[in-house]
Amino acid sequence: MANEKLAVLVNTFGSSVISVGREVGLEVVLNKAQVSQGVKVTDICAASLIGVVGSGIQGTAVIMLDKSGFSSVVNAMSGGMIAPNKQDPVAMSVIGELSNMVSGRSLTQAALPGMDVTPPQLIAGESIQNVPNQSAGIKSFTLPFTVNPAGTLYLVLSFNAS
Amino acid sequence: MANEKLAVLVNTFGSSVISVGREVGLEVVLNKAQVSQGVKVTDICAASLIGVVGSGIQGTAVIMLDKSGFSSVVNAMSGGMIAPNKQDPVAMSVIGELSNMVSGRSLTQAALPGMDVTPPQLIAGESIQNVPNQSAGIKSFTLPFTVNPAGTLYLVLSFNAS
Repeated sequence: MANEKLAVLVNTFGSSVISVGREVGLEVVLNKAQVSQGVKVTDICAASLIGVVGSGIQGTAVIMLDKSGFSSVVNAMSGGMIAPNKQDPVAMSVIGELSNMVSGRSLTQAALPGMDVTPPQLIAGESIQNVPNQSAGIKSFTLPFTVNPAGTLYLVLSFNAS
Repeated sequence: MANEKLAVLVNTFGSSVISVGREVGLEVVLNKAQVSQGVKVTDICAASLIGVVGSGIQGTAVIMLDKSGFSSVVNAMSGGMIAPNKQDPVAMSVIGELSNMVSGRSLTQAALPGMDVTPPQLIAGESIQNVPNQSAGIKSFTLPFTVNPAGTLYLVLSFNAS
């Protein structure tokens, strides 16, 4: 049962990145061949984390972007109005907004009762790595998306299903 | 009422860092003069984020460490048995364990009904910045602690109280 919920969440989060992206003018393609268990990201400069709790599940959904991916997302979502500077809280909040929309959409679609989310936590830096949690019972999944015109967006999901 | 809950959480999280630290052999001192609203951290190389949801509150508690602080925490908590290498998931999981203990202790002390937490998300990198969320209604607080023998541990709390 817990595994079923996890599968539902991985699927709805993955499809929500694509459908939300389409609505905000951001073209993303899931690299199906590179979807993997565990955390596999490279060259991350910006991340937005959302905590997901409820229905016997505790976990996090993280959107991570490399430099080109960050530029592409900020450009697309702001219509070119905001410069993609990761030191600028306004540019970073664009990433937070994207993860808000993705998590809202996917939890609605997952239709699991009593799920609640935290506001996004925004992280900027260099060579950010999301280190897999070593605790037993926590499963992580990495979904890499190619972003148009350039860059990579990673969706990293980590859930502890009781 | 919401502000009261926030004050309780900031106090219990702050005191839990000190009391948990003492129990695991980690001496930390709160720099009271530098406690501030907003996010003020520098030179962060490792972070552990926990989502906190329930009782009308959604938010995150983040422990952030500079290089010396990371070494001091891993040394103290592992009794010198684990090398403080932030590429090593085992060393990073020490930070996750610290934030688990701190959030568990502080939510017990806060005695707010129905609070739930996510497992820690571990982030390693260079010059990590926690960018304040621009949304209205989200309040952030930074509590800097001096770590013995060297380094700084920042506790960054961001809450959206409805």
